[in-house]
Amino acid sequence: MDLKKYIRDIPDFPKKGIIFKDITTLLINGKALKYVINKMAEQYKNDKIDAVVGVESRGFIVGSALAYKMGVGFIPIRKPGKLPYKTIKATYALEYGTDSIEIHEDAIKPSQNILIVDDLLATGGTAGAVVELVSKLGGNIAGIAFIIELSFLNGKDKLPGQKIFSLIQY
Amino acid sequence: MDLKKYIRDIPDFPKKGIIFKDITTLLINGKALKYVINKMAEQYKNDKIDAVVGVESRGFIVGSALAYKMGVGFIPIRKPGKLPYKTIKATYALEYGTDSIEIHEDAIKPSQNILIVDDLLATGGTAGAVVELVSKLGGNIAGIAFIIELSFLNGKDKLPGQKIFSLIQY
Repeated sequence: MDLKKYIRDIPDFPKKGIIFKDITTLLINGKALKYVINKMAEQYKNDKIDAVVGVESRGFIVGSALAYKMGVGFIPIRKPGKLPYKTIKATYALEYGTDSIEIHEDAIKPSQNILIVDDLLATGGTAGAVVELVSKLGGNIAGIAFIIELSFLNGKDKLPGQKIFSLIQY
Repeated sequence: MDLKKYIRDIPDFPKKGIIFKDITTLLINGKALKYVINKMAEQYKNDKIDAVVGVESRGFIVGSALAYKMGVGFIPIRKPGKLPYKTIKATYALEYGTDSIEIHEDAIKPSQNILIVDDLLATGGTAGAVVELVSKLGGNIAGIAFIIELSFLNGKDKLPGQKIFSLIQY
């Protein structure tokens, strides 16, 4: 399946000069959604994954369907103040300023095999912070999967030693 | 399966006096997640659903896994400014003030059978706004499904004529 034809380019979003890769046109197609999730599940079928971790908000869309398909649990990582129980936090750099994300401190048991997923790998800032949180809780990161990788932004450099998988590359 | 034992009560979240129903302890259990999604899919198996609509952020978790299971597309509804293409907006009342949500204006074709899902039915404000958006685009609402319904808040009153389904009631 040629997934690129399901991605819509949105010029100047969220700001001038950026061409945003809109995945809603992929998600809305039942066959394309099924294909994406099945391909990701296939990639990790021998890795004894214990849980899938996804980042608010688009990572929830990829992550929960993948967790369902793989028959494992789904663990949400959220913006500060959104998770109701005790959390640990990681902060990462943006183009201007910083941002933070949180995970429940009891979400992962030491040595569990964790698959991290998100919709898009850009500069790798968010994914790097997710790696930090999962590692702090003792999780073993089996891989990091994305629908789209913007290769020209070299996000992989922020994820040293990690196994990266993506279905679409630009 | 007794789903209530997977729900964690968090006192005084997000503010004093409220007992928050934490579903992350359900999602983290692969068997419980599978059970919830399969039960919802079973409920609508004869309704020829064309797409599942879910609201940012927890509605994404329920909605995308359900769409995947049913083999249909997933349509995200988001906070203002988050969706990249042209949108329509609905505004609804909160305890103090208002909030708004948006949907892509081309997300639904007229007469498509739409299933709306979210994690929790409380006062019904958000769900009412989702009904408004789906109806404006010409969608036929086949049903509205929640993991949890807080019956004592009478959220159904804000959803007249709609078929409501929930797996857990308090």
